[in-house]
Amino acid sequence: MLIDRLIEKIRELHSPIVVGLDPRLEQIPAAFKEPYYQTDGKTPATAAKIILTWGKEIIDQVCDLVPAVKPQIAMYEQFGAPGIDCYIQTVGYAKSKGLVVIGDIKRGDIASTAAAYSDGHLGKVEVDGETHPGFDADFITVNPYMGYDSIQPYIDNCKRYEKGIFALVKTSNPNSFQIQDIIAPDGRPVHRHVGELVSKWGEELIGKSGFSSVGAVVGATHPQEAEVLREQMPHTFFLVPGYGAQGAAAKDLRGVFNKDGIGGIINSSRGITGAYALERYKKDYDQAAFAKAARAAVLDMRADLEAVL
Amino acid sequence: MLIDRLIEKIRELHSPIVVGLDPRLEQIPAAFKEPYYQTDGKTPATAAKIILTWGKEIIDQVCDLVPAVKPQIAMYEQFGAPGIDCYIQTVGYAKSKGLVVIGDIKRGDIASTAAAYSDGHLGKVEVDGETHPGFDADFITVNPYMGYDSIQPYIDNCKRYEKGIFALVKTSNPNSFQIQDIIAPDGRPVHRHVGELVSKWGEELIGKSGFSSVGAVVGATHPQEAEVLREQMPHTFFLVPGYGAQGAAAKDLRGVFNKDGIGGIINSSRGITGAYALERYKKDYDQAAFAKAARAAVLDMRADLEAVL
Repeated sequence: MLIDRLIEKIRELHSPIVVGLDPRLEQIPAAFKEPYYQTDGKTPATAAKIILTWGKEIIDQVCDLVPAVKPQIAMYEQFGAPGIDCYIQTVGYAKSKGLVVIGDIKRGDIASTAAAYSDGHLGKVEVDGETHPGFDADFITVNPYMGYDSIQPYIDNCKRYEKGIFALVKTSNPNSFQIQDIIAPDGRPVHRHVGELVSKWGEELIGKSGFSSVGAVVGATHPQEAEVLREQMPHTFFLVPGYGAQGAAAKDLRGVFNKDGIGGIINSSRGITGAYALERYKKDYDQAAFAKAARAAVLDMRADLEAVL
Repeated sequence: MLIDRLIEKIRELHSPIVVGLDPRLEQIPAAFKEPYYQTDGKTPATAAKIILTWGKEIIDQVCDLVPAVKPQIAMYEQFGAPGIDCYIQTVGYAKSKGLVVIGDIKRGDIASTAAAYSDGHLGKVEVDGETHPGFDADFITVNPYMGYDSIQPYIDNCKRYEKGIFALVKTSNPNSFQIQDIIAPDGRPVHRHVGELVSKWGEELIGKSGFSSVGAVVGATHPQEAEVLREQMPHTFFLVPGYGAQGAAAKDLRGVFNKDGIGGIINSSRGITGAYALERYKKDYDQAAFAKAARAAVLDMRADLEAVL
């Protein structure tokens, strides 16, 4: 079961950390981009080349420290076809370095459409009887607003290809309360009901670790909700955004983990890949050393998290 | 305001119909695909070529009858970079034929990520100071589960580039009740609360028609809910899936429209593009005439809807 492999890697590396790859051009050092612009001009295709090489340099520096990376497809998709090609290559490169890849795609649609997303992102793509590799992420994130039939095609491919998903339950952003915290008649907010559904959807994919390959996205910016959900969903592994740039600190993560210190993987994107520009790292790393600064930031994050594990 | 243009076209053509472009290879006639396979093999790139030409043939046959088409990006995206390129070309071709294009992408993510989707799909893409065209759909569908800050970047581009969005409120699929129908303390289900939010988000984008360029997705498979939402959201235009292949009939659509017969645009995908294979059209159209059969199905749908307008 994929979730067992992820948890094993977390244990081996003492590192419940996923490095978010959210390539924003304005956060990539100018000196790194300039040679590409000079040769190929400031086009979307050039941007795709830049973020591919950028991602590889980050991956090279963190692949022995963390179990997983999480490329955010929006940052690639905006550059059109070359961007998608770059996303697929980034997924492949990360896997070739032994990393588990969580494709942050947050898709959600009716069953027949979800099947196309599921085959494209997790499974294989069929062209009238001939099968071809898809994007081949290990996990993807999905949006559960439409209910089980919109999720089932992903679960089918999780079983078939040993993959996993993380469904949004309680997201890290400021306005997540608007829908996710509406109180149901039993006094529990919508996100706990969603959590209950997600637990149920994952029942057939529970591995030796006791956790399911159907996980939940639970924001670190809501520590109390996370604690309640951890108790409610003992077999559901959490993908936790919100640490670092979005404002949550290590102390906010206590509730994510069970008494064995297992239960979630914490994402940091800008806090790691943009570390070179932070006061803390600036003095030791110049712009050209952005990937080395990312490595230093991962080591610091690991130390920071140790306090709550 | 974009919504005014859409409503004007609906009135001109007496046709509140959007043709859904959901290219599934198994629903495209074998004789149409075979020449491509023989030349280029059964690859994702070939599939992309096929669905591009297929879409153009459909568009040619329906562009004088309907105001809009709705390409479903999942069907393109699964074929990787060539698929995305084909999606962008399909959007462009439909616009060149005077159609309003609703990109069915159902994206939803935190603000900084939503900005990348918004620039890519509705706005312009910036590469360090140089701007490039994005995918340039007119409307896109979005998922509201994360709340306002996840939607605002789309609204910003709606204002800036005269675009629009349709946010999921009550979806057409069987399990939509699981989250969308949870009852809140005031006795109203979650989807009505979402409807209220969507109305509010659209307040600044209400055009001369009295409707906003921020619309709602409301499934025809839930006629009672649609009627209640129509009353609750008088300024919100509905994108209505579920007619035809998903099971809803014209009588289920009454509640979608206000007393002037305005209020929504009804999607049909397989019922139109797959008409050639239906008993009703088989005798008059062979496989090679699939696009002409689609045209006939649009005319029949228009007649069918007249009864409730």
